Amino acid sequence: MGVMKTKGVIEQAISDLCRSDVHFPKTLVMADLGCSSGPNTLLVGSMVIDAVAKTSLEMGHLAPEVQINLNDLPTNDFNTIFFALQELQENTTTEEIIDDRHPPTCYFTGVPGSFFSRLFPANTLHFVHSSYSLQWLSQLPELEEINKGHIYLSSTTPESVSKAYYQQFQKDFMGFLMCRAEEMMGGGRMVLTLAGRTTDDARGEESYYLWRPLAMALQEMVFEGLVDEAKLDSFNLPQYTASPTEIMNLVECEGSFTLDHLEIFDVNWEAWKIKNYDKDLSQSKKPEGHVIGHGVAKAIRAGIESLVSNHFGEAIVDDVFTRYEKFLAERMSTEKKEALVSITISLTKKM
Amino acid sequence: MGVMKTKGVIEQAISDLCRSDVHFPKTLVMADLGCSSGPNTLLVGSMVIDAVAKTSLEMGHLAPEVQINLNDLPTNDFNTIFFALQELQENTTTEEIIDDRHPPTCYFTGVPGSFFSRLFPANTLHFVHSSYSLQWLSQLPELEEINKGHIYLSSTTPESVSKAYYQQFQKDFMGFLMCRAEEMMGGGRMVLTLAGRTTDDARGEESYYLWRPLAMALQEMVFEGLVDEAKLDSFNLPQYTASPTEIMNLVECEGSFTLDHLEIFDVNWEAWKIKNYDKDLSQSKKPEGHVIGHGVAKAIRAGIESLVSNHFGEAIVDDVFTRYEKFLAERMSTEKKEALVSITISLTKKM
Repeated sequence: MGVMKTKGVIEQAISDLCRSDVHFPKTLVMADLGCSSGPNTLLVGSMVIDAVAKTSLEMGHLAPEVQINLNDLPTNDFNTIFFALQELQENTTTEEIIDDRHPPTCYFTGVPGSFFSRLFPANTLHFVHSSYSLQWLSQLPELEEINKGHIYLSSTTPESVSKAYYQQFQKDFMGFLMCRAEEMMGGGRMVLTLAGRTTDDARGEESYYLWRPLAMALQEMVFEGLVDEAKLDSFNLPQYTASPTEIMNLVECEGSFTLDHLEIFDVNWEAWKIKNYDKDLSQSKKPEGHVIGHGVAKAIRAGIESLVSNHFGEAIVDDVFTRYEKFLAERMSTEKKEALVSITISLTKKM
Repeated sequence: MGVMKTKGVIEQAISDLCRSDVHFPKTLVMADLGCSSGPNTLLVGSMVIDAVAKTSLEMGHLAPEVQINLNDLPTNDFNTIFFALQELQENTTTEEIIDDRHPPTCYFTGVPGSFFSRLFPANTLHFVHSSYSLQWLSQLPELEEINKGHIYLSSTTPESVSKAYYQQFQKDFMGFLMCRAEEMMGGGRMVLTLAGRTTDDARGEESYYLWRPLAMALQEMVFEGLVDEAKLDSFNLPQYTASPTEIMNLVECEGSFTLDHLEIFDVNWEAWKIKNYDKDLSQSKKPEGHVIGHGVAKAIRAGIESLVSNHFGEAIVDDVFTRYEKFLAERMSTEKKEALVSITISLTKKM
């Protein structure tokens, strides 16, 4: 979903990159950081390939070769990506070459490791992309006070907790920029999309929209004696939804990049209903909030199931997410549905 | 085993590479083609890292960063490699820095695809290595005559069959060199080790040493009515054990590389007994041929089980390899044991 919204930003970055380079690159090296292993893993690569082909045609150049480095943690399922790649390459026929846009020759690699550390040799990347990964922290910050009954920043969260969260994000995001600054060539471009917020208040309901229903599910289970209260109090999500101001300040503070563009958009939950999840359910007569809630709950579960399971035990995971779906669907039925804010920034590595 | 024998050749190639480059490279990019996913997968990388550190120290340079690209077919288990890498990196402490040889910073990637096609952008590789992969053909050649009762070239194999095998190897090996010639920088080095033979006769017993026992196992099963005779006649291994002359001629004919060094050595089967397979069995009182035969049979099974299973059906695979081990052990007990010839060549990409 989010990736499609940033298509224009990615295309612009690639177009600028190809035009800005006095020596039109013979090989364009890109990295997709936090690529995951799902239906969208190869989407950014194909957008870049299209944009390179288009720009090359407009400039009257032969398209450069493109090397696409797909990165995620070593626990990511790279085997599945590589199978999908093989199928993609076998199914790509010359018939797909439309209006003289000869697609560039592409080479794919898998790069295992954390993007909070160096992943590539110095001065080797032209383009970096990351989508919905950078809101995740490298680790949960150490908290001096308890975030009672909650699992992320809420209106009743102590200020020290909120501050510790921001400091961890600051450290991670700056570390990320510093690593990329070493790996990218001068003039290289970077497009980052992350879950964020519009307001200055990190403890506002905006960032808690998706998570309060999960806290409610767990609170209910504490009430029923199924979950230990202390367990809930010690569970906090290792993510931070930054504001545009925070992000802009950190980019400026790190100093290696200029900010070309910042865009804020709401995630379109409709897409979750239509495309990705349970077609049969999406055609049923359930209220819309429930249908979308089901899809979103499923996606969220895929993302955080291991966190929940490691902390609370595998036995109660199904119960947690069944209750989560119920509370989330209720929220989506009664409140506005577009409440997850995404922030996309486009950066240029200084020369 | 083979990799350890070529250690000196690899070290020499890296040393020459670092010394020959007028601009000592800031990043040394290498590829291990057909890396597999076993205990030896990361061995070549660590040899290269050591050699780079040693040469840099001798030359008074800071060690360059090293990018190690691990290639194999998309069906290879890259997930397992990436897990092993993570463990390796977590266990590497600064205590391992011996006598000022600061190890270079390393970056690993996985590259899925066939090395008979292009895998990397043009002019990007400094060093290429491949061990025991290039004797495998990209496909079985089309045969005009039947290779009756045999599974590889034997003394009774028709000449047309032997010729078709050579032509397939020629096509594959030349194709391999042409792809690498595009990918490698001028002055880059390549060390290739492949199963081969010492004699000019492709149908000599030398190359059939390991495979005749497998043919005997299948022949026995044909005799017992367990395997269809036509099935055996249509089964041929997609490998070719080339002679030094054939290899040298093909390198010269392709024309992009100069041959620096060619080395022929016997595989030391002892190592299979001691290190890799079934310690308990290797300490038993069975005759030596049986102990080594067991290890070799196991390794061979790991390599070709899917070929046998696809052709003859999964149901008889256990039976085939039990019989194979028996015939192989008999052969190893009565004939010389060092009968698998390996050929290592060291090449330099012409400027």
